Amino acid sequence: MLNEALLSINQATTREQWSLPEAVGGYARQGVHGIAVWHDKLREIGLAEGARLLREHDMTVTGYCIGGLVTATDHAALSAALDENRRAIEEAAVIGAQCIVFVAGGLVDGSKDLVGARARCLDALDVLLPEAKAVGVTIALEPLHPMMCANRAVLTTLGEANDWCDQLGAGGELGIAVDVYHLWWDPNLAHEIGRAGPRIVAFHINDWLEDTRDLRLDRGMMGDGVIDIPGIRAMVEATGYAGHREVEIFSSRDWWQRDPDEVVRIIKERYQTAV
Amino acid sequence: MLNEALLSINQATTREQWSLPEAVGGYARQGVHGIAVWHDKLREIGLAEGARLLREHDMTVTGYCIGGLVTATDHAALSAALDENRRAIEEAAVIGAQCIVFVAGGLVDGSKDLVGARARCLDALDVLLPEAKAVGVTIALEPLHPMMCANRAVLTTLGEANDWCDQLGAGGELGIAVDVYHLWWDPNLAHEIGRAGPRIVAFHINDWLEDTRDLRLDRGMMGDGVIDIPGIRAMVEATGYAGHREVEIFSSRDWWQRDPDEVVRIIKERYQTAV
Repeated sequence: MLNEALLSINQATTREQWSLPEAVGGYARQGVHGIAVWHDKLREIGLAEGARLLREHDMTVTGYCIGGLVTATDHAALSAALDENRRAIEEAAVIGAQCIVFVAGGLVDGSKDLVGARARCLDALDVLLPEAKAVGVTIALEPLHPMMCANRAVLTTLGEANDWCDQLGAGGELGIAVDVYHLWWDPNLAHEIGRAGPRIVAFHINDWLEDTRDLRLDRGMMGDGVIDIPGIRAMVEATGYAGHREVEIFSSRDWWQRDPDEVVRIIKERYQTAV
Repeated sequence: MLNEALLSINQATTREQWSLPEAVGGYARQGVHGIAVWHDKLREIGLAEGARLLREHDMTVTGYCIGGLVTATDHAALSAALDENRRAIEEAAVIGAQCIVFVAGGLVDGSKDLVGARARCLDALDVLLPEAKAVGVTIALEPLHPMMCANRAVLTTLGEANDWCDQLGAGGELGIAVDVYHLWWDPNLAHEIGRAGPRIVAFHINDWLEDTRDLRLDRGMMGDGVIDIPGIRAMVEATGYAGHREVEIFSSRDWWQRDPDEVVRIIKERYQTAV
């Protein structure tokens, strides 16, 4: 039996059904006291009210989504992106999130310059990391699946996330989020998880459906796909990671269409049978 | 100006419009004398007739598609896959293909064992390489995009293709096909192209559309997407590669719907402006 106290649900999993108060209430009602919060949902009800609600329901906030998106070439756009990150870092601090999830951003403005986009991410992190440190927030680099490289995240592998951490040389204000969906295919995964070690501050679970139909919104429930989740979990936990297992499922055709109480119920089942 | 004599078209690009005789005639009519041939199209007209037709139109066959798909766990299925590869190797020899494109195969039979599937590919290559060598055929390992890992190819990076080549220790009967679509996102691409060096026996071009809608059949025409094709071509050619640039576009929503003569005409334009 896995420890239920270490189950968290990213509220993206029920984003079409539930507001933040509904999600907090719905998860807690079934005994799930871990949640990852999205900024749009938090801002809907306001930061102070959101923080109060999370405390009231004794929720551990395993992540705040999202920071990053700092690949713009245009100066004004990049400056606005940095300001947005500053706001998110403050919010993450107020709600006590264990990390803010940093999604790099894709190629923008018709650019084909991946090397440049990656360099701009490192520049932005150089600016943001001291600000995160000042308020006790950890920025978790999340490499996304290479199929999202063009429009979502130029950071595509755990190896590169490790390289960035090496280059940035930060302390506890920098970490890595490992999501099985994004990384399962990587022939270097075991090696890079070992290399990441204590940098791993978040572990996301879900599944890759064999008949995946959409590049962003067709993730599967644990057990419904091809990922060896227990195998990857074992690798992550062998490094000493003892944190939450956070379920994050973007699913426009299936899980977003279901009764959210049923979604939570099935997550709890699969947490014991497929994780 | 790029040398037009080094332009090749993979007949998958016009597969919905043209049979092999139509493709050979249609490409040659516009001065394109490089083609990659698919087995289903060749078998439609028969091996002897296909070989005659290719010679008659003075076509250079830059690849024969496809070998591989050797990840089955079931003994009978694996044995049938090896026999299918043997047939394809013989056909590649008869039509004088510069290589047979080896697509590894995905996870099968409900397995989640990526490590095992990759090991079976190496075992199959151990069997097939001497047979390819005996008839003068080169097997070109083609790493496919990680989004095709589950159902098409467990070989997902150029780094792993290089590792396989290192392990197999073969000679000229083993090479690598570099396709910009599959590899453009890789942060290690420049390094791994350098490492591949003379192993590169095929170079495939096309583009990644920013709004890609399908995981297999939505490739773009060179210039319509985000890939820095000239940059990758320069890396490949800096290793000494002086072979064809083969256009391979699977496109159910666009290029397969068009007049194939127009497709060839636009390929010739983009070959000069976007490659």
